[in-house]
Order: sequence, then structure tokens, then C-alpha cells
Amino acid sequence: MKNQTYRMTMLFDFYAELLTPRQREFFDLYYNEDLSLSEIAENAGISRQGVRDVIVRAEAAMQEVEDKTGIIKRFEAQRPHLDAIEAAVAEIRTLNYRQYEDARLSELTDTICGELAVLKE
Amino acid sequence: MKNQTYRMTMLFDFYAELLTPRQREFFDLYYNEDLSLSEIAENAGISRQGVRDVIVRAEAAMQEVEDKTGIIKRFEAQRPHLDAIEAAVAEIRTLNYRQYEDARLSELTDTICGELAVLKE
Repeated sequence: MKNQTYRMTMLFDFYAELLTPRQREFFDLYYNEDLSLSEIAENAGISRQGVRDVIVRAEAAMQEVEDKTGIIKRFEAQRPHLDAIEAAVAEIRTLNYRQYEDARLSELTDTICGELAVLKE
Repeated sequence: MKNQTYRMTMLFDFYAELLTPRQREFFDLYYNEDLSLSEIAENAGISRQGVRDVIVRAEAAMQEVEDKTGIIKRFEAQRPHLDAIEAAVAEIRTLNYRQYEDARLSELTDTICGELAVLKE
């Protein structure tokens, strides 16, 4: 189950609050805290299969919302545009460093890099 | 009801696919196509109050998802960062125009503006 951790983490990041408290707890322990199904089962006093069922249902519920809305896809579609801005700013910095050494231009590229870092968080 | 059109349009843009087909249809006709409740009621062969109920439930369903996930809020939080990048690029353009007239620098700012336009769509 753990071979899709990135996708699961994204689903949980966007849609965790749509889950039941129990789904949220088990999903979080399994994917984010890296506990095994058996460990979660032992703590919760239910079967390993019971834990697995809760997690599988949680995933299905979140994936269904994503399949309908495409919201994560929409967020991820921004990435190449942010990367393109980052590449252009890097080249402006190099250009300024090599030719102009303009302090204000340097500040402006710093501002853009700072804002990009926030957007890429 | 129509005094919150911006909020409704945002909810619909993100969460329309979570609605039932009928909720989606009435909501769209009312907020996006600007039909009146009476017009929708007449076309659908149900009461004006019936149409109103469907739309109110559609709004509640979408608002509940937004209240839980905060996804629209998250998208909107990007706006000031994109604006700050835009302002910095505008100043780089002015600086280049006034002092350096560097063709490559001009191209790079064009690239950034183009990418920003896509991100702000």
C-alpha cells in the first residue's frame, strides 16, 4: 500500500477534513507517521484488516472528490509556470551580476525569488 | 440571493462536480446564466420555491466542503504573491527601458509576465 505515498500525502493535504475522525487518524498514522497496519490495529484494539478497510475507504473517498473536482491537478498545473518564472529570474540575476551590478535590480530579483518560494511551499 | 455572485461563482468553479446534476443545472442557470427563479421554475415545471430549495442546498453543500478544506481560500492566498512578482517585474522593465535597453532582459521580463498571466487566469 505504501508505494503511493506522494499521491496519498497530496490527497490528505487537500481533503483530510472531508474524512471521518477515525479515517483521518488511521490514514495519518499509516502514511504520515509511518506506522504499520499491525501497530495501528494493536493501538486501536481492532483487526489489521479492519484498519486496512478504514484506510482504503478513506483513500477512495478523497480520490473520488479529486476525480470529480481535479483540484490537486489544478494546483500541480501551476508548477511548470512557477518553474519558468524561476528560470527567467535566475537568468536576470546572472545578467545583472555579469554586466550591470545594479543594486535595485538585485533587490527586485530577490523579491521575486522570495515570493516564488512562498508559492512553491 | 444574487448579491453574493462572486462567492457563488468561485464555489461553482471549484466544486460544481460534487453537486447532483439538477443542483448543478439550476445553480448554473441562476448564477451564471442569470435566469430568475421563476424562469427556471417554468422551464423545469416545478415551483419557484422548489428551485430556490435546490439552489440553497447546492450552495450549502459546496460551502460545507470549502469550510472544511479551505481550498478556495488557499488559491486566493496566492494572489498577493503573484501581484508582488508582477510589481517587481514591472519595475525591472522600467529600469531596463530607462537605463540598459538590454534585449535579453526585455525578453525575460516578457516571459515572466506571460507566465504570470497564465497563473492569474
